[in-house]
Amino acid sequence: MSDSAVLISEVGPRDGLQNCAAAMPLAFKKRWIEAEAKAGVTEIEVGSFVSRRLLPQMADTGQVVEFARTIPGLVVAVLVPNMRGAEAAVAAGAHKITLPLSVSETHSLRNIRRTHDQVIDEARAIAEFLSGLPEGERPHFEGSLSTAFGCTLEGPIEEDSILRLAERLVEAGCDEVGLSDTTGYADPASVKKLIRAVRGVVGADKLQGVHLHNTRGLGLANALAAYEEGITTFDSSLGGLGGCPTAPGASGNIVTEDLVFMFESMGVSTGIDLEKLMACREIVAAGVPDEDLYGFLPRAGLPLGFVSSQT
Amino acid sequence: MSDSAVLISEVGPRDGLQNCAAAMPLAFKKRWIEAEAKAGVTEIEVGSFVSRRLLPQMADTGQVVEFARTIPGLVVAVLVPNMRGAEAAVAAGAHKITLPLSVSETHSLRNIRRTHDQVIDEARAIAEFLSGLPEGERPHFEGSLSTAFGCTLEGPIEEDSILRLAERLVEAGCDEVGLSDTTGYADPASVKKLIRAVRGVVGADKLQGVHLHNTRGLGLANALAAYEEGITTFDSSLGGLGGCPTAPGASGNIVTEDLVFMFESMGVSTGIDLEKLMACREIVAAGVPDEDLYGFLPRAGLPLGFVSSQT
Repeated sequence: MSDSAVLISEVGPRDGLQNCAAAMPLAFKKRWIEAEAKAGVTEIEVGSFVSRRLLPQMADTGQVVEFARTIPGLVVAVLVPNMRGAEAAVAAGAHKITLPLSVSETHSLRNIRRTHDQVIDEARAIAEFLSGLPEGERPHFEGSLSTAFGCTLEGPIEEDSILRLAERLVEAGCDEVGLSDTTGYADPASVKKLIRAVRGVVGADKLQGVHLHNTRGLGLANALAAYEEGITTFDSSLGGLGGCPTAPGASGNIVTEDLVFMFESMGVSTGIDLEKLMACREIVAAGVPDEDLYGFLPRAGLPLGFVSSQT
Repeated sequence: MSDSAVLISEVGPRDGLQNCAAAMPLAFKKRWIEAEAKAGVTEIEVGSFVSRRLLPQMADTGQVVEFARTIPGLVVAVLVPNMRGAEAAVAAGAHKITLPLSVSETHSLRNIRRTHDQVIDEARAIAEFLSGLPEGERPHFEGSLSTAFGCTLEGPIEEDSILRLAERLVEAGCDEVGLSDTTGYADPASVKKLIRAVRGVVGADKLQGVHLHNTRGLGLANALAAYEEGITTFDSSLGGLGGCPTAPGASGNIVTEDLVFMFESMGVSTGIDLEKLMACREIVAAGVPDEDLYGFLPRAGLPLGFVSSQT
């Protein structure tokens, strides 16, 4: 992370593309990642190491990681559902791996066919595997608490149950936990409350990031609430591409362009050049031409006299 | 205002409809206002008393006010650009009248062809006229500082200039001033800063409401910021209808449905039933069939297990 006040972690090449019907060709993925890095984005989740059969859009993740690692200063993140994915991530050279654990066991079973105990066991096995690696080859390991603000299958999840799972992920060896509003159920009050509660059990240094969706329009208000609560890492997706296909009705990542605009307008530095960031939309539009791209700022343009923290 | 923690002031029948190409027939306006009042909305800006030639969509405002006054408990608000409008508003029986003053003099000249001094003079004349009315017939008089967060013609406006205009409106006899982000230039930090500054010169009791737009996607984040700063009255428009036609590129009121959802999710009571509120969209869609209606909540639906403060 640079001198920026907040870290915008682009998840479009993973969370966005895995929800697109068509696979984006490798050449476009490379152009996209390179262009966003040039715009000042310093962390990108470039893919996931999952079954090619289930998610053919992610089949080239190894090559994407290999390419992304050549970009100076870029933290190359990937999502892994299990030990096999973690091994592939390490082999490819990812800097950060994220293992999702849905706090809704119903969602977990439907999404990755695993109980909570099974996912915790997997986290422990991955952590042990990583701890055996030489220092320089060991990626940062995050356990992401998905459906943390409620589940479209189970509704609200008991806070105590979430806190216990956060503790268990850290005990299993995760360097950090994240909170993910997979279903777009969060609101500014619940965001603040859950951040405080989870930090209360795992420590503030072990919860620094949130993954928020804009399903019901509260994405940026929730990001503001998280920022006010001290969160410094925010996942978002260029053009709002993606969502969660296994949670019915859930769609819509936070739009990176709008999120960066909010922080930059507030004088909170992101390190990102908004004009260059918005120019990346053309690459995405060309790479997955059947997909809609979202975002308010790209339609309305920057305000007259807007001064970014980058200028 | 009821026991609700915040007052949602619906401006769709005015700010929304005056920006629609076609005029909504009177019968639909009545159905809309009645249905929103039944959903729990306690203040509605039902129209404006302006030139029929310039805004034929508002030509029946007198009849709309007359009808709206028959709805028990509803505060019937109107916008007036001048003394003539104020006289018409009083004759019709409006409970609240709002006079806009654009803090961008360029915008003021283009929008209503008046300088700041001329608008302040008009405010003073209106206040004098109102003070001569019997107590029960005297409407609440608000001066609304439009383009308060920046202007598409002038860019950012000096804070000192805004504060002086706020003071002058109160000195001229306005009961209250409001802040209006006519152009969608506000961000959460500027919202908090300007609210504090204006309250510093006119007193907190004389600034209780904001009119925010969602042009660049920050509408709800800005509303959250205003709420955190103690603001209790929020303008919004059903389906996000409307914007400001004289500020190029500006469009998009905050969507009432999403705004109410944000507050209700946070446990902040609005007094509004979201299901009934969303049902009003059908009336608007039928009354101005060529207009797009916006809103995230209406597309995604309420979260599973959602509990409103109304139930």
